[in-house]
Amino acid sequence: MTGWVKIVGLGPGSDGLITPEATTALAAATDIVGYISYVERVPERSGVTLHLSENRVELERAQTALSMAMDGKNVVVVSSGDPGVFAMAAAVFEALEHGPRQWHRLDIEVLPGITAMLAAAARLGAPLGHDFCAINLSDNLKPWNVIEKRLRLAAEAGFAMAFYNPRSKARPEGFETALDILCEAVGPSVPIIFAHAVSTNDEKLVITTLKEARADMADMRTMVIVGTSQTRIIERQEASPFVYTPRAFVP
Amino acid sequence: MTGWVKIVGLGPGSDGLITPEATTALAAATDIVGYISYVERVPERSGVTLHLSENRVELERAQTALSMAMDGKNVVVVSSGDPGVFAMAAAVFEALEHGPRQWHRLDIEVLPGITAMLAAAARLGAPLGHDFCAINLSDNLKPWNVIEKRLRLAAEAGFAMAFYNPRSKARPEGFETALDILCEAVGPSVPIIFAHAVSTNDEKLVITTLKEARADMADMRTMVIVGTSQTRIIERQEASPFVYTPRAFVP
Repeated sequence: MTGWVKIVGLGPGSDGLITPEATTALAAATDIVGYISYVERVPERSGVTLHLSENRVELERAQTALSMAMDGKNVVVVSSGDPGVFAMAAAVFEALEHGPRQWHRLDIEVLPGITAMLAAAARLGAPLGHDFCAINLSDNLKPWNVIEKRLRLAAEAGFAMAFYNPRSKARPEGFETALDILCEAVGPSVPIIFAHAVSTNDEKLVITTLKEARADMADMRTMVIVGTSQTRIIERQEASPFVYTPRAFVP
Repeated sequence: MTGWVKIVGLGPGSDGLITPEATTALAAATDIVGYISYVERVPERSGVTLHLSENRVELERAQTALSMAMDGKNVVVVSSGDPGVFAMAAAVFEALEHGPRQWHRLDIEVLPGITAMLAAAARLGAPLGHDFCAINLSDNLKPWNVIEKRLRLAAEAGFAMAFYNPRSKARPEGFETALDILCEAVGPSVPIIFAHAVSTNDEKLVITTLKEARADMADMRTMVIVGTSQTRIIERQEASPFVYTPRAFVP
């Protein structure tokens, strides 16, 4: 008898943001597969085998999960945030498409989670309250010129923007270029937000403008959100400001 | 003493997708404010006053909430999905910005939820597994020509797209035009998904192509997702296909 694979989003960090559905799946798993830091977030219990892997081996991890399910295991693949947003779900389906034909009969389910951009947006107000886009700024999986083109088109469209994986040690110059492009295309006074490790003990929020933004305000645990020319800041006494992008668009 | 306002996302419909944080907030509220259908989803209990309002009065509803918090009430404003995505959070901050100055001192928090596009994407596989955008297709709050421009630019950028409020009885022709634009700009064979009432008993999923799509496949409870030229369909025997957009972009 075959088992199942559930690809589960753990949300951005806080236990209060893990859905009951995800908790139920974790409790039913015989095997939990994922990137070290995410598997470490799952409460330990007897009867479950943890399979921790390094970063950048998403496809191998997906193959392991599917293969174990064929052997009758009940496998949870964990992602941070939502598994469908720059996380494990697409990797599992890629492995499935190119894997043995009998894998297609497996019981596979994706359980959504609170993705980082929406957790960060909530902390700040409603910066994504109007039309918006989500872009993975890593150039591991696409050429850098495609990223540049998307930034310019998103600016022209008037989208608020959320950036995943803004900056790594391996390629710090990419994000600097991105900030220059945005400053020119969206405007220097438009708000940009650096939301580090939202909903964890390490949470840190910085609200500034594209003109004042520096690339080293971001690392790989930072979600970056850029507003539009219509985004508003509500200053408050003795509290950090709210940022929101109005629902209505005034040309 | 003043109370507080929490703007809470109830997720797309299933109780298994309501975060523990949201459940805790609902249990602590003295007053719950929201659109009729969303307030009706909150379990009844004594000691809480429900304030149900019609659609399209978001700003008045937000003012009521803020005003009650000034009077010492603990107010939860409920949204379906995530409150920051085409829902109540932006309306509350708009009311706050233009309201009496003393409202700025209120304790206001946004609690994120599972937004419809990510719940729908999870049901299908990972159609938003690459860069994507979210567009509100309603022209109540922006001119229709802005929507058309955004569709063309999003297609040029190679974004997968998620559409909220695709079609209403009042303006059925808008979505038909949108489908024509997309078919031309993205390509007739690109997958489009109509996800109706995801995670509820009324859930219905239709996977087709832009060429075969008809405007009446959507209503106001339908989330529409359009893939990119790289989106893949995995056919399965005796089960609905999976749809995913690969992580890597091949120019």
